[in-house]
Amino acid sequence: MRIARIATTTGPQYAVARGESWIFIESPFASPIVETGASVSHTEARFLAPCEPRVILGMAHNGSPKERQAPPQAFAKSSRTAAGPGDVIGLEERVGRVVVEAELAIVVGRECRGLTEENALDAVLGFTAGNDVSATGQMELDSFWTQTKNGVNFTPLGPWIETDLDPLNAGIRLWGDGELLAEASTSQLARNAIEVLVYASRYVTLGPGDVVLCGCPCTLTEAVAGHEYGVEIVGLGTLTNRAELIDS
Amino acid sequence: MRIARIATTTGPQYAVARGESWIFIESPFASPIVETGASVSHTEARFLAPCEPRVILGMAHNGSPKERQAPPQAFAKSSRTAAGPGDVIGLEERVGRVVVEAELAIVVGRECRGLTEENALDAVLGFTAGNDVSATGQMELDSFWTQTKNGVNFTPLGPWIETDLDPLNAGIRLWGDGELLAEASTSQLARNAIEVLVYASRYVTLGPGDVVLCGCPCTLTEAVAGHEYGVEIVGLGTLTNRAELIDS
Repeated sequence: MRIARIATTTGPQYAVARGESWIFIESPFASPIVETGASVSHTEARFLAPCEPRVILGMAHNGSPKERQAPPQAFAKSSRTAAGPGDVIGLEERVGRVVVEAELAIVVGRECRGLTEENALDAVLGFTAGNDVSATGQMELDSFWTQTKNGVNFTPLGPWIETDLDPLNAGIRLWGDGELLAEASTSQLARNAIEVLVYASRYVTLGPGDVVLCGCPCTLTEAVAGHEYGVEIVGLGTLTNRAELIDS
Repeated sequence: MRIARIATTTGPQYAVARGESWIFIESPFASPIVETGASVSHTEARFLAPCEPRVILGMAHNGSPKERQAPPQAFAKSSRTAAGPGDVIGLEERVGRVVVEAELAIVVGRECRGLTEENALDAVLGFTAGNDVSATGQMELDSFWTQTKNGVNFTPLGPWIETDLDPLNAGIRLWGDGELLAEASTSQLARNAIEVLVYASRYVTLGPGDVVLCGCPCTLTEAVAGHEYGVEIVGLGTLTNRAELIDS
């Protein structure tokens, strides 16, 4: 099932995909999901960030098998960095170099803490494409990565949530102006989505709509103003955002 | 003016203090503030966290003037750690030592980024008492402080917001089971509330209800299960929370 959050004249509404249409629903976190009776065609839908996280976590040094030697480590991003397809990633001259990082994003489905390997996936609503934009020019000054991770629209998410995806073996592609820049799989991550959830939920309470970015298996590039970056999760779709210089 | 968030049979409602009563209002972020017509007496009110932050920031090494030698540095806490007066601070055996830290908390009034010394206080709704609970037993393993700062109810806030308070010279007292354990003033902070806001808003977009904890001028103690800790901001009030061992 695909779940999107779509702009309407009465505000954002969640919807599920059926054929070429998106059928509006009351809440993706309810069971069963209740349809409102209204719908919009795929071509007319304007997609927003597919969830409204209160918590966004990312995983440091999780991009390659050898990084398993270090203990897992999560960092926090402000929930106000969540952005949707088409939102402009803000580059600010004074913060220096910025990179875009194509990652698998887990969308949490219910409040949870202390998940186990056995029940971790039960707490997941689904998966989406995530761009963990990072001002790497700040890292040296900023051991907590607060200055690094919280620029304007620094966590694009979307274009929708896919509930039927194998998070342990999902292809990730990074596109720059329509050209394939990098390609990898979540199978290359030091710790997989289940291990990441078990680790993160040991220390941080997660809840409906929260996002855990699984880490970047070398699917990154420097963001340059005026260029458009696509994060594709194979079998899910592509999240596209342009980078632009903004005043600061 | 004092602004509280109070539990009612129809859910949490904001209120302003008048004499011995709390007058319910529609939103503390609206101007002018609209009263609903209902009220509750002070003795009958059950106070919740006085705001609903999407972002909670704290300041590292900001407790004493000599720490001004290092650059300012903010860390993020999950918005799900926000708790109200009387909520139980969760101690977990496996995370080790936990401390409570009495701090002045800034409550942001509007969306802002890039504040200046001149306009920083215009973006503030008011101030409240904040307890920056921290699992210091995790710090050595956790350079981002993600494991350190995100335990259950690790950011008690309250009992209410005071709009008329001098944040540059506010007394802070830490109480343990009714005994004064430590006393200090925000005048001892390495960087004051205005400087903290200017710094934080350079890198992190803040919005209505967000909280910035100003740092701990030695007003801290180890949290022990079964004991009650009070954070007093002089002229504002005292936020009290018990620590208890919880399963994890």
